[in-house]
Amino acid sequence: MKFGRFELQGKTFFGLVEGDQVVELDGSPFESWKATTRKHALAALTLRIPCVPSVFYCAGFNYLAHIEWGNKRKGTNVKAPEKADIGYRTNNALIASGETIVIPADSPGPVQFEGELVAVIGKTARNMTEANALDCVLGYTLGNDLSERTWQKEDRTQWRSKNCDTFKPMGPFITTGLDPLDLTVSIDVNGQRAASYHTSKMLFTAQHFIAKITRYSTLHPGDVIWLGTDDATQPDLKHGDTVEISCDPIGVLRNPVVRAQG
Amino acid sequence: MKFGRFELQGKTFFGLVEGDQVVELDGSPFESWKATTRKHALAALTLRIPCVPSVFYCAGFNYLAHIEWGNKRKGTNVKAPEKADIGYRTNNALIASGETIVIPADSPGPVQFEGELVAVIGKTARNMTEANALDCVLGYTLGNDLSERTWQKEDRTQWRSKNCDTFKPMGPFITTGLDPLDLTVSIDVNGQRAASYHTSKMLFTAQHFIAKITRYSTLHPGDVIWLGTDDATQPDLKHGDTVEISCDPIGVLRNPVVRAQG
Repeated sequence: MKFGRFELQGKTFFGLVEGDQVVELDGSPFESWKATTRKHALAALTLRIPCVPSVFYCAGFNYLAHIEWGNKRKGTNVKAPEKADIGYRTNNALIASGETIVIPADSPGPVQFEGELVAVIGKTARNMTEANALDCVLGYTLGNDLSERTWQKEDRTQWRSKNCDTFKPMGPFITTGLDPLDLTVSIDVNGQRAASYHTSKMLFTAQHFIAKITRYSTLHPGDVIWLGTDDATQPDLKHGDTVEISCDPIGVLRNPVVRAQG
Repeated sequence: MKFGRFELQGKTFFGLVEGDQVVELDGSPFESWKATTRKHALAALTLRIPCVPSVFYCAGFNYLAHIEWGNKRKGTNVKAPEKADIGYRTNNALIASGETIVIPADSPGPVQFEGELVAVIGKTARNMTEANALDCVLGYTLGNDLSERTWQKEDRTQWRSKNCDTFKPMGPFITTGLDPLDLTVSIDVNGQRAASYHTSKMLFTAQHFIAKITRYSTLHPGDVIWLGTDDATQPDLKHGDTVEISCDPIGVLRNPVVRAQG
């Protein structure tokens, strides 16, 4: 199943996406829901982010080829992490597919994409094991973890390098029943393939993150875990670009880019 | 005015605290509200955290005496920050006054308190100046930024050192009309004064944080900014302790401490 969150005439609702049609739901996939008799053309609806997390988790470095690509380009010597790093991003930065990424006027740049698979939590979970961890996952969506690289170096924390308004596109839909280690995620800029990777190359799996997090912290329905990126994160994004993160069973997360006027 | 969030017989509502009485509100201080004719004895209600943030901001080091206290105790040479550091904490860790802080069974310790003044955002805000920043603040509450110091050193991020379930007590109430630079915050452990400081010693003010954050990120009603701690963060907390953060016009944030069974 493919769940989406939509807006029509000021009303926000969840829906089941069936081809180019959406069946409106009463309730939510994070609590309980039933299908209504209301159907809409997908094209007639405004897409919203597919969930509003209570906590927005993200993986640190989680793919080897991405680390090696960065080392080669920057002459650095970053090693693969020995343990899974758990970080956070913030809700103010979330935008839906179709919404505009705004590079702040004073950003020295570069601003780069990172296309990621995102595990969406469906049930309250604590003390999960790697064996049962995926029981609390509703499904998977896509995320674009945009980064302002100058600010990432300059600031002690990642607040504005990673969490400016609009810097976290997420969507378009949440697809259930997927194997998170058997997906291909691709990134296109202006229709040109920029990067592509298979999720089997993940260093630490969704299962591992969920077991690790829930040893200390309760996961709640709607929480998200962004699972890191592989491959290149260039070309740098500039005013007028369109960036797309795609994965066949989930869809395309597509966002235009503008630079704010000084 | 003093706003609180309460639970009674499975229903959660906002109320105005007037001495030992609570006037139940229709609506919320973060949108619109009016007083109802329903009054409750404060003692008959269960306290909830006073708001559920969309983003949970916190200051880095923000008081000089706290930095000096740490340097002296640990033989370190941490300098006062040259600019305001903006970090994050997570909602899973929030508990109300009266709820129990649970030290994980495998915590090597020490676990320490940090009593903080918290600015609670009341209105959507972007591009505020220091001059008008406080216009978006509803009021102030208290927070206890508990830290597991071994994990704080061991892990690359602060996910479990700072964000374990129950590690962020917040409350008891939100008081409006206060000068955030003219308050005394005190911390008691088992009824003994452990630390006390005046908020005029803050290195970076609430105004400064709000202006800085809203240059890049929209603040939303219910967001919180924890403003850092001064003075000592000892004695270390142990099973059976009670820790209280107090500030006269806000109240007492009181939490018992237990250690989880292995």
